[in-house]
Amino acid sequence: MIAGGGLVHDGVRAVNIGLAGFADPIRAAGAPVVALDWRPPAAGDRELGLLLAWLEDDPGDRVGGAIAAANGRAVERILAAQPALVDVRLATEAIDGLAGRMLLHSGPPIDWDAMCGPVQGAAIGACLFEGWAETPAEARKLLDAGKIAFEPCHDHGAVGPMAGVVSPSMPVAVVENGAAGNRSFATLNEGLGKVLRFGAYEDAVLERLRWFVSTLGPALSTVLRAGGPIDLKAITAQALQMGDEGHNRNVAATALFTRTIAPTVATSLTSAVQAEVFTFLRGNDHFFLNLSMAACKAGLDAAAGIDGSTVVTAMSRNGVDFGIRLSGTGSTWFTAPVGVPDGLYFPGYGPEDANPDLGDSAITETFGIGGFAMAAAPAIVRFVGGTPADAIGFTRLMERITLARNSAYGLPSLGFSGTPTGIDARRVVETGVAPVINTGIAHRQAGVGQIGAGIARAPLACFELAVRAVARGYGIGVAA
Amino acid sequence: MIAGGGLVHDGVRAVNIGLAGFADPIRAAGAPVVALDWRPPAAGDRELGLLLAWLEDDPGDRVGGAIAAANGRAVERILAAQPALVDVRLATEAIDGLAGRMLLHSGPPIDWDAMCGPVQGAAIGACLFEGWAETPAEARKLLDAGKIAFEPCHDHGAVGPMAGVVSPSMPVAVVENGAAGNRSFATLNEGLGKVLRFGAYEDAVLERLRWFVSTLGPALSTVLRAGGPIDLKAITAQALQMGDEGHNRNVAATALFTRTIAPTVATSLTSAVQAEVFTFLRGNDHFFLNLSMAACKAGLDAAAGIDGSTVVTAMSRNGVDFGIRLSGTGSTWFTAPVGVPDGLYFPGYGPEDANPDLGDSAITETFGIGGFAMAAAPAIVRFVGGTPADAIGFTRLMERITLARNSAYGLPSLGFSGTPTGIDARRVVETGVAPVINTGIAHRQAGVGQIGAGIARAPLACFELAVRAVARGYGIGVAA
Repeated sequence: MIAGGGLVHDGVRAVNIGLAGFADPIRAAGAPVVALDWRPPAAGDRELGLLLAWLEDDPGDRVGGAIAAANGRAVERILAAQPALVDVRLATEAIDGLAGRMLLHSGPPIDWDAMCGPVQGAAIGACLFEGWAETPAEARKLLDAGKIAFEPCHDHGAVGPMAGVVSPSMPVAVVENGAAGNRSFATLNEGLGKVLRFGAYEDAVLERLRWFVSTLGPALSTVLRAGGPIDLKAITAQALQMGDEGHNRNVAATALFTRTIAPTVATSLTSAVQAEVFTFLRGNDHFFLNLSMAACKAGLDAAAGIDGSTVVTAMSRNGVDFGIRLSGTGSTWFTAPVGVPDGLYFPGYGPEDANPDLGDSAITETFGIGGFAMAAAPAIVRFVGGTPADAIGFTRLMERITLARNSAYGLPSLGFSGTPTGIDARRVVETGVAPVINTGIAHRQAGVGQIGAGIARAPLACFELAVRAVARGYGIGVAA
Repeated sequence: MIAGGGLVHDGVRAVNIGLAGFADPIRAAGAPVVALDWRPPAAGDRELGLLLAWLEDDPGDRVGGAIAAANGRAVERILAAQPALVDVRLATEAIDGLAGRMLLHSGPPIDWDAMCGPVQGAAIGACLFEGWAETPAEARKLLDAGKIAFEPCHDHGAVGPMAGVVSPSMPVAVVENGAAGNRSFATLNEGLGKVLRFGAYEDAVLERLRWFVSTLGPALSTVLRAGGPIDLKAITAQALQMGDEGHNRNVAATALFTRTIAPTVATSLTSAVQAEVFTFLRGNDHFFLNLSMAACKAGLDAAAGIDGSTVVTAMSRNGVDFGIRLSGTGSTWFTAPVGVPDGLYFPGYGPEDANPDLGDSAITETFGIGGFAMAAAPAIVRFVGGTPADAIGFTRLMERITLARNSAYGLPSLGFSGTPTGIDARRVVETGVAPVINTGIAHRQAGVGQIGAGIARAPLACFELAVRAVARGYGIGVAA
């Protein structure tokens, strides 16, 4: 019988798929009950449930067949990605449309007035760095007066961690996807502590950015021209067997990257510059993060714009809203308010100091690494909280909302099964399982910087909006 | 009741600690039986069992109190070890007593005639490298005539992987244990494939050794003098969180080592030498192995010579015999014939081609890493065989024969518990649990090289001999 109440016949064996409490009287009456962990699709929302039924994979159906085919193509392109670091250039040279007094920022579009503290701090720092203002007060005046244009990184093939601010004179990594030929861009990682991406803009922060322009950027460019592109897919694949997950833990990838470029550094740079570059790489365990992000962006951009696909091609946060894009709906953002991550705080800070979740770095989870590959990185729980068993659990959970395993990225602790890849917005809505994201935590005020790290979950509302939009694209609407 | 036969009373509930078959008739009679996985101590050997009882920890007993105290001191010294790489020197300069026509070899003492193929091959190669002979035939003639002296590496504070041959003109890493002040030595790792340590001696092998003398050794020495000692404990601790186990997987430690020395390489070497050094380090994922071995040797030598201690301070193999040393019995070897590892073979080879287990590299397991830390390195099963679950199981098993956890070496997948450290020979004999060793597999003929990698278990007989010797030291003998 299906237990939905208290009526029990002699010799009955019950399966309970309702509330757990339904089973109690049956058990009390001595009958065995098997409890199924079942929830109604779309949390019981009738309209969404019906939409999902219309949108189900079905080779014999116009809509269901088209979605399955479109998603198949999208996933194929994600799996086929061959990201390589090909150059480091000034942003204005590399990124189409980034010119004049314009700044790029992380997440979906947002106006200066609505921006959170860390993004405002980073924008102030960028104005100082560019020489558009002499003091933070002057910068704020410019910004308040609307003299600085803002656009999302994602609209320019770029990604930036946390505030994600990219200004024209910053050097950016240029990553090319060898499979599809498209390019993506990311700033160079500054390290931890007082850094622009967490909204700090003191002199040391700007000094480091100037050293990126004068030394690190040109040095890496020289090395790449002399030694050829660096295969980022190979480094990430190896790093996932070395305790990295490619988002909040990058020490293996950074060390492998250093070892890979070292012979060319030795022959193509002066001894003084070599020493500066190697010293910076030795002191920054997160250097590879931005390269990892650009690699993921390059793979996902190749899967964008496939008509009718429900595969997620971007998840990102601007510190106020969380936004996602689907392959089938192009550059449209589906947004919802973003929460504060659940995490570990540096001494002296707590959740009350935290900014809501922030940054384009969730591109790593969108690609299937980061939080989706936590099983690769049990040691990360010391940084983001939880236990090593949780780390494996998160990867397993993400298998429920993805369409494929990326066999190029094997997870040793799961018998080398590939990372869960290709988030299907339909599955997220159906299961109520929100994508997990490993993330840093910024102080809510401009100028303070990082105060912790933790785990965030993407808001389900974004995925519901996205699924509704796909349905509309197929001409499907359901009366609420 | 304790089930030892078939007699069953009504309502009986049995615990079976005998053979599994004892339980069958009881279960058949309908009684519940709990089966305990229990074996008699020392596999039921009456004499050994009685010796173990005499030697048990017991603060109130002369013998039991002395052993507990001695083992406590030994383990303390192992845990306190602070190994650092301080220099790279020619072996004859660094190692006391290595002069003239003498070669060091791995494992317990053995004569030329009795040596296995790979060690003979390495000795031939060393004669050619030193210029003692012009051809392999000439070298063999010298060796047959007894013109070359042989001593174990371990007698000179040194360790060598596989054949372990050290000749006077080879550069060796000099590791100093900052806690106790003692030093240890290891050759530089040659990489995989055709290498002297697997018994190959063709021109390319000797060429590489000459490059060690002309370039790599002096370069590393220069870097260490300019930049100061390298903390090997810190690198190993980090590498254990990055998928290395410090014996058969060393890619993380090698990359971290490269990143650590890179800034000093940049400022202290010519560009041409830098490029050669970095290219070699990039191509050799096992470079750190020999440094790891020397670090373990330095820690264990500090724990040697503590009267009455049953802690194991060396496990090693010469390809014919497996030998161990205990802290309380100094430089005495307890030996038994060594078997062929259980492993994975390179294409075209199989167990029939394999030499019995070989090398001083089991010093890593003696120290508590390598096979004892397999839980850190699930990916290693692709190299040595088995499944990721086996890797965790081996670490858990080794906890049964060790006295401590080394909290400096946390294992993420086991909730950061430390590596099992301080093998107690009594526990090995009592439980019958043989230490597990990750190892390479050499071809049995001189000159061929590596043909696989796998997992070996130390012969229990070594530990039985050692326990008997300790008992004699306390004046304890039991009539058989």
